[in-house]
Order: sequence, then C-alpha cells, then structure tokens
Amino acid sequence: MAKKSSAESQGRGGNSAVKARDKATLGKIVDFADDVAAKTFGGREPKIDIPTRTKSNTIWNKKRGILQMGDAVSQRELFNLNQAKQFMQTCLHSNSVKQLIDADKTLSLRGMFYKGLHTVAGTKGEKTFGDQDESDGILEDLEVSLEALREELHIYAKKRGTMIGNITIVDNGDEIDCRRMGTGGYAIPGIVEPDVIQFKRCEAKFVLHVEKDTVWGRFNEDRFWEKHNCILTEGSGQPTRGVRRLLRRLNQELNLPIYCLLDCDPWGHYIFSVIKQGSISLAFESERLAIPDAKFIGIRSKDYRACGLSDDVQIDLNDNDIKRAKEIAAYPWFAGDKGWQREIEGLLTNGFKMEVESLITKDISYVTEEYVPQRLKAKDWLD
Amino acid sequence: MAKKSSAESQGRGGNSAVKARDKATLGKIVDFADDVAAKTFGGREPKIDIPTRTKSNTIWNKKRGILQMGDAVSQRELFNLNQAKQFMQTCLHSNSVKQLIDADKTLSLRGMFYKGLHTVAGTKGEKTFGDQDESDGILEDLEVSLEALREELHIYAKKRGTMIGNITIVDNGDEIDCRRMGTGGYAIPGIVEPDVIQFKRCEAKFVLHVEKDTVWGRFNEDRFWEKHNCILTEGSGQPTRGVRRLLRRLNQELNLPIYCLLDCDPWGHYIFSVIKQGSISLAFESERLAIPDAKFIGIRSKDYRACGLSDDVQIDLNDNDIKRAKEIAAYPWFAGDKGWQREIEGLLTNGFKMEVESLITKDISYVTEEYVPQRLKAKDWLD
Repeated sequence: MAKKSSAESQGRGGNSAVKARDKATLGKIVDFADDVAAKTFGGREPKIDIPTRTKSNTIWNKKRGILQMGDAVSQRELFNLNQAKQFMQTCLHSNSVKQLIDADKTLSLRGMFYKGLHTVAGTKGEKTFGDQDESDGILEDLEVSLEALREELHIYAKKRGTMIGNITIVDNGDEIDCRRMGTGGYAIPGIVEPDVIQFKRCEAKFVLHVEKDTVWGRFNEDRFWEKHNCILTEGSGQPTRGVRRLLRRLNQELNLPIYCLLDCDPWGHYIFSVIKQGSISLAFESERLAIPDAKFIGIRSKDYRACGLSDDVQIDLNDNDIKRAKEIAAYPWFAGDKGWQREIEGLLTNGFKMEVESLITKDISYVTEEYVPQRLKAKDWLD
Repeated sequence: MAKKSSAESQGRGGNSAVKARDKATLGKIVDFADDVAAKTFGGREPKIDIPTRTKSNTIWNKKRGILQMGDAVSQRELFNLNQAKQFMQTCLHSNSVKQLIDADKTLSLRGMFYKGLHTVAGTKGEKTFGDQDESDGILEDLEVSLEALREELHIYAKKRGTMIGNITIVDNGDEIDCRRMGTGGYAIPGIVEPDVIQFKRCEAKFVLHVEKDTVWGRFNEDRFWEKHNCILTEGSGQPTRGVRRLLRRLNQELNLPIYCLLDCDPWGHYIFSVIKQGSISLAFESERLAIPDAKFIGIRSKDYRACGLSDDVQIDLNDNDIKRAKEIAAYPWFAGDKGWQREIEGLLTNGFKMEVESLITKDISYVTEEYVPQRLKAKDWLD
C-alpha cells in the first residue's frame, strides 16, 4: 500500500474502508438526529432511548462465552428537569462526533470533554459538563445507543502497550515489519480498526501476551518470538482497548491462539477475565473486544511446588486480595470452570501471590527458556 | 547494519561498542571487588566509599546548567552492625551486575530485586532484601560508586513513550524508519545507549516533546512532523530515563533543539525542570541525562489572554498546587531566571492551571496549526 500523498495526509482519509465505516456511523447519527427532530416537529416530546449500562442489565452468554447487554432501556426526555441536561449533552456530543468524522480527525476522551465544554447561553455560568466523568458517561451512552464502538465515533482511548514478532502490518498506509523493531517495538495505537491497521504477512502461530513491559523486554531480549514463531505483546498492566481489540483481531482474523502470561494474583486473574469475557461495566463492547478462547498460561498457584521455587517468591495475600479472589471466583465464567475454581482455591490455600518476574529467582531466562515452552508443549493452561 | 544471525541472537552482543562499554563497566566492578579483597587479606577492615546521595550534597552548577553531586562520601564497613547488611547487599548486587554483563542480558529493577533475594545462610529466615526499595537504593549507590549509569550496569527502567518523525535509527541492528511508523509509532526502549541505538539518517531540524500520548496523537494525525520537519516524542507524563537519555542524545549528537509542550501547572514545570536540569534525588545522572538548553514552548500563563481562551480552560489551583509552584520558583535555575519568575507569578495570579488539550476549545487542530508554529516562528519560549 502506497504512502499517502501530502494532499491526503490530513487525517486518516483516503481509502474506501474508512469511508464505509464512517458512512455507517454518520448514518446512525443522522438517524438519531432525524428521530429527535421528527418528534419535535410532530409536536411530540423529544426523547431518546438509551440501553441501560448497569450490572443488572448485563447477561452472561455462556454459549458464546461473552458478556452481553440485556434489553433494558431508559428514556431521556428533554422536558424533564432531571433528564434535560443529559439529553442536551447527548445531542452535543453527537454533533461533535459528526464534526470529527466530517473532518476525518480523532480525539481523546479528554479532548471530547474540552470540545463539548462551554457555558450554556442564558445561564449564570452553567457549564455543559461538570467534569470529564460526566462527558465520558454520555459518550458511553452514545456508543450503546448507536451500537458503534468508541473507535468508530473517532474517539480513542489511551495508547499503551507494544508489539513485536513474526508479522507485518500496515498502519495508516505505512508497512511495519514487526520482526525488525529492535528493543523498543511497535507502539500499539488507540484505534486499530481494519481501515487503520491491516495484517499483511504473518508466519506467527500464536500470540504471547504478557502483563508488564519489563517481562516483554526479557522475552524480546531472548528473541522468544523468533525461536517460537509468535507475536509478543504487552499491555503495561490492564491492557487498553486498543491492545484488546488488536488481540481480538489477531485471534479472529488470523486464527491465532492468545496465551496470557500474568501474575498469580487477583489482579492477574482480573486482567485475564477482561481480555477473555469483557468488563462488566462495558458489556456492550464485548461483542468486539472479548476473546472467549484466550488461554491463561501462568503463573499458576501449583508452580510454587511444580517449579521448585523458594519462599523468596511469596508475597502474602492481604485482606483485600482474599476478598477480590473470592469475588472473581464467583464470576459466572469462572464459577462454572473446575480449573479456575481449583486455581483460585490454590491461591487462597497458598496464602501468597507470585509475580512472573519472581521466576528470575530460578534463572534470568527460566521463564523464556523453560517455563513457557514447557507449558505450551504440555498444553498446560487454563481456559 | 546487518541483522544479527541466530547464533548471535542471544542478548545484545556482537558489536565492538558493546564490548567497549561492558569492558569498562566490568573493569570498575573488578576494581571494586579487588579493593575489598585487598583490604580483607591485608588485615584491614573491609569498607567501601559511597558518594552521598542527599540534597545537601547536590550542587547547582550554574555555568554548565546542570545539577551535580558534591564530594561528600560515606563509608560502609563490614564490621559495623549498622552497615554490615548494606555492605553485603552492595557486594551481592555487584556480583549480579557482573553476571548480567557476562551473559549479555539486562534486567529491570524488579528483576534485580528478585535476583538478589534469598535467605541468608545460618539465619532464621533473614532475607537479603526487605523489599524492592532497599534493593533500588543499593543499585543507586552502585551507580554513583562506579560512576556508571544504571543502563551501563545492564539495568533498565520502565519502557514508556513513543517517537515518530524525520529520522531513521538502528535499534539492535534493526533499521527503523520513524517516518513510516503509522499511527502507533516506535516505542522508545528503556536502554538507548549508543551500542543499542544508533542514529542513521536525520533530516529533522528539531524535536517537539509533548507530555501526553493523546497530544502526540493529535500532532501525528495532523502530520506535524512532516510539515515542520521534526521529530515528535511523548513521555506519557514524567518521561522515563530512556526517553530523557534519547532526547539528550538527539540534542548533543545531532544538535537538535528540544522544545517541550507541557501543561501550564506545577507538574508541567516540574517535568520540564527534570528534562532540563535533572532530578534532585538523582543528581549524579544529570551529567548524562540533563538537557540544559531545552526550551519550554508552552502552555504559558499569558496564553489565556494572548490566545483569547474562554473560561472553559480554567482548572482552579488548589493549595498543593500553590505550594508546589512556590517550591519550583525557588529552584536555583528558576530563581535566577526572570522569564520563569514571571511565568510562575502569572500562574499564581491567574489562579488556574491550563492543559495543552484545553486548546481544543479553540479548534481541534489549533495547537498543531497555529499555536506551536506561531511560537516557533516568534522564538517565543522559556529557557
């Protein structure tokens, strides 16, 4: 794919995939506005239906292995003192999104807050948004109402996380060979939709996703991805939407298994849960972010004995850890899984957490040369 | 530079620059060990001199424009109950560093903690290190004692921050064209010493460093680096050592001015202070991390009027902000600078902070199309 000429260089425009996606999103926004207008001019009360983003309206779809939103809907009316502000905020952000798509530009959540912020005419300093949280909530409402991912509204989440390995991608027309990205790697952007990122050539047979950049550095330095023909990603903690969406696309479009190497603690288990099933607060995203067949390759509670580790690796569980572990064990997708029930029981029985980095107590490269290769060979992981 | 063959692919070895750097560091470690041994076998008390890392031993070198360590030294003796543990910890980490260099591998600070962690023989569960902080402190002692940057000891800090622009670099043998890195960019690694990263071809005339990845995204999307022939970096907040060292090398080796676009608040001023003069707690690093001629291009307190901003951009200063602003105004390098005194006075008089992203209230691309180009043209910045 050729580099864009400078005439096309403003924004991400130019290819037909962009236009198709944006056209669809614009269509939804225009329909939304038309509906409000039709009600108004028809003498009816202007109101909009917003699917309810609450835990009670979140359904665990066991068959598909993802969280989904239920059918509950709340109405937002203009002529209702409690709802008028949110109604106006929704219209304001819809208009901003339309402007972004028309200009072929993107904004962060913070940027959207500032873009929509102004003093309401005729008031004594009443602002359109009290704070960014208020703005973020309205954007989530808009996502579910329009059934469009935030990324399709031209809004991006934080950029964080890196990739390296046996794949060539095209990012905004630039061909990037992830086999030749040195010690730094390719920085995964906030928006990785198919019109921005295309997969070009991929020999990799799987993806190894690790929690921390420091662990990623160990695997890259030992050239694990070259020796084991894979792609190596990291999310610097809880992976961003960009990272999750990229992993999902690698899984769905290239049929690559996703193996997650995370700490043996409730935080590691939670990260895995979000990668696999989606987050409870944003269940509507799961359809396009969750990876139901992701695997948890470790660290496992049995490893203390199985790997002959010393007590140096033990980090005592505190009260909050124990509470979180029990909450996570009760998640529907873990509750029905014997492997996960045993795993979390093992963690609680041990009474201590273990970090991936603690395997260094065996040897600097134990994790890359023995631990992960052995687990992959034995297909020893949790679903 | 050719890609390493698989026989050489373990670690970063292979080229002569690595060997020279590692040889020098190893020599220092061996000298250190020899000195301890000579004292011991000579019947003298084993002790080591550690330069004092305190504020009172930090000197502001006005002429060079950097913070430096003074001459104060504290002794650490083996036969002193208060010092014996630290003496042993220092020897333990020295040995680990030697092992890392011999194996041509690198470790994170967390990794070094685990590597050095074990139960001391003959004790009832006494550990070599109580926690990672203890380990980190010893590594800093080692840096100053050996006069070697952490990176030369094969220890890396967190990887964070990205780069794009008119430069081609070589990272561990891989040629990376930063003009063709899409929307994601090149992820700046933790260690950017000349044996890992070489600058190959650079047309860029300056570096624009921004605080946040979201602002970086705006500049990249608007292809600012292409239109203004520069390099664009971000540090996701306080830049890591890797980012600071890379900026310093771009400044020193390629003579590129470094312009920093940061928020108008004490945190933005502090980030600039660290980029420019180094941090007080780690003054010994300034020699090779500080960039005395870095420029602060904005946001400036005068911009509220100068740019005709609305009150939407105002974020009230809280008590802590006011305290921090006054502390920063008293830093020797700011205290003697009329421009900075005016700037911080302006911030306090305004009574509010402003974020770079708040310029979106003017227009999405105001910051890339008007603000920064105008400031560069007018050479309107703070030193």
